[in-house]
Amino acid sequence: MTIQARRPPFFLGIDLGGTNIKSGVVDDAGKQISAVSVETHAENGPEAGVRTLAEAGRLALKASGLEWSDIAAVGLGSPGTMDIEAGMLLDPPNLPGWHDFPIRDRLAAMLERPVVFQNDANAAAFGEYWAGAGRGSQSLVLFTLGTGIGCGIVEQGRIVEGRHSHGAECGHLIIQMEGGREHPPGYFGRLEAYASATALVKRAVEALEAGEPSVLQEIHDSGGLSARAVDQAARRGDALANRLMNETARYLAVGATCLMHTIDPDIILFAGGMIAAGTPFLDVIRAEIRRIAFPVPAAKTRVEFAELGGDAGFIGAAGCARAHFART
Amino acid sequence: MTIQARRPPFFLGIDLGGTNIKSGVVDDAGKQISAVSVETHAENGPEAGVRTLAEAGRLALKASGLEWSDIAAVGLGSPGTMDIEAGMLLDPPNLPGWHDFPIRDRLAAMLERPVVFQNDANAAAFGEYWAGAGRGSQSLVLFTLGTGIGCGIVEQGRIVEGRHSHGAECGHLIIQMEGGREHPPGYFGRLEAYASATALVKRAVEALEAGEPSVLQEIHDSGGLSARAVDQAARRGDALANRLMNETARYLAVGATCLMHTIDPDIILFAGGMIAAGTPFLDVIRAEIRRIAFPVPAAKTRVEFAELGGDAGFIGAAGCARAHFART
Repeated sequence: MTIQARRPPFFLGIDLGGTNIKSGVVDDAGKQISAVSVETHAENGPEAGVRTLAEAGRLALKASGLEWSDIAAVGLGSPGTMDIEAGMLLDPPNLPGWHDFPIRDRLAAMLERPVVFQNDANAAAFGEYWAGAGRGSQSLVLFTLGTGIGCGIVEQGRIVEGRHSHGAECGHLIIQMEGGREHPPGYFGRLEAYASATALVKRAVEALEAGEPSVLQEIHDSGGLSARAVDQAARRGDALANRLMNETARYLAVGATCLMHTIDPDIILFAGGMIAAGTPFLDVIRAEIRRIAFPVPAAKTRVEFAELGGDAGFIGAAGCARAHFART
Repeated sequence: MTIQARRPPFFLGIDLGGTNIKSGVVDDAGKQISAVSVETHAENGPEAGVRTLAEAGRLALKASGLEWSDIAAVGLGSPGTMDIEAGMLLDPPNLPGWHDFPIRDRLAAMLERPVVFQNDANAAAFGEYWAGAGRGSQSLVLFTLGTGIGCGIVEQGRIVEGRHSHGAECGHLIIQMEGGREHPPGYFGRLEAYASATALVKRAVEALEAGEPSVLQEIHDSGGLSARAVDQAARRGDALANRLMNETARYLAVGATCLMHTIDPDIILFAGGMIAAGTPFLDVIRAEIRRIAFPVPAAKTRVEFAELGGDAGFIGAAGCARAHFART
């Protein structure tokens, strides 16, 4: 990439996670100019944390070859719970001890740049909408499949933040109200309890413990059972693994259908480690959606994998900064 | 009401239903100036239908004491399926034979006024948002409990129409993906199959046929079983009726919670004949929401009955005309 291909103004995106902070500079067309990752060390608390965020931003800027004066605004994505409008972390389980912390304004003061604050899953959805698999759409739903199920919704070009910063918590859709699986403790029948990578492994263990024969038994005995291992066993024709993957696809189709009957977006995207299962997995999701959703959205809604991978968060955060900057 | 209390400009709202057309003039503050109702006679087809719509509008105007020159724009709400953006009815089950009909432009030509087209449930939600129980909110979800469950969503002041005019079809949220009730035929586990007035009666009949003792048996034998009868029996202490009403409230809480974890609105409203069950019914819904939803939205989201009754549709349609008029 030559410097001429970069379209100003530039935006700095920062994606705060419980383990790592990813940051990068993004140009006005959504093109990533740089990307860095540093350890969060959340255990050191929020004061140290905001310095680490600033340092990640400085490293990303340095890697881009640009100057602070080139950066129009900064976007920060973070796990919740949070008050998006106030720029506050409230009680984030992945950042223990970072309670009631005015992270947006603290970072803005440190960087001397305007900072826009957003939920990390929302930022990732906005990233895909702006610069990823959702380019050109007006509305989009992104499910990120990992330990839990993250979700972000862009509707008519705007993030559905929710009035209490709880918009798009769609891993917590109730899809089995009676006799549903319990997760998190005390809550029953939620999508996340069925279709996250964690849930897939849990269902596999249950089946093994119930005596179902499978190549997964040996992997489990050696302590290596993972969503990836289930997928690989399914590809090798293991019957249990195949059933587990197909069930996961069907659960995800239920979640997608609920969003199609609520938001009715242009496109539904899936991201996260589980999409390594590839097109056959996606095709099962698509077939199940066509079976259970209303005919018109079932026929017209695109169902795809996301494109930006682990960079979606900071690219989307930069996009949020750009959108905010354009509005004001 | 004196003529001085009316705030111009004025908008004409028309709510097209399978049986009746309701219409009224609404002022710029959402105040209803007139209301009329005429029979649709859908069986006469769309050409006669559009003349009846125009006639309903003329009657509403006459009842308001205003002139056509006072009417800035007209809003038309209609059942789907439809293409909202194109102003087309596509294949509405409640208006058999009104296929692929450009109803918006036909009505506009007949009335010589700009006409805005909207889904009837969306229009009702916008009515409550603008002039009803949602006044002052930024985002709102309305469930209308009747033969089915209608739903409308207003998010940051705008209707979630969906990209294929299927936004807010939340009666079709899947809340019991395994072993769920079938309704409509071929579809399983949808909210509507559990919590509509029709579903309540169906569940009552099933319980009676299973031999559960209840005062409802006699009512059923005489052919008079209705959601209202179940509610009234519950108030008189009938155990089965009481259980059925409480279950209905719990199903509705599941639907509401799914919307709180998706849209996270200021307020969730319930409308339709079933809200005659009153505050005790609403309190069961509220208690269940507090039990199953995330703590923050559970504590902060208002859960109320709608206020506009059967007028919500035309008031909201008028509001849509006003919103469109203000934008253009």
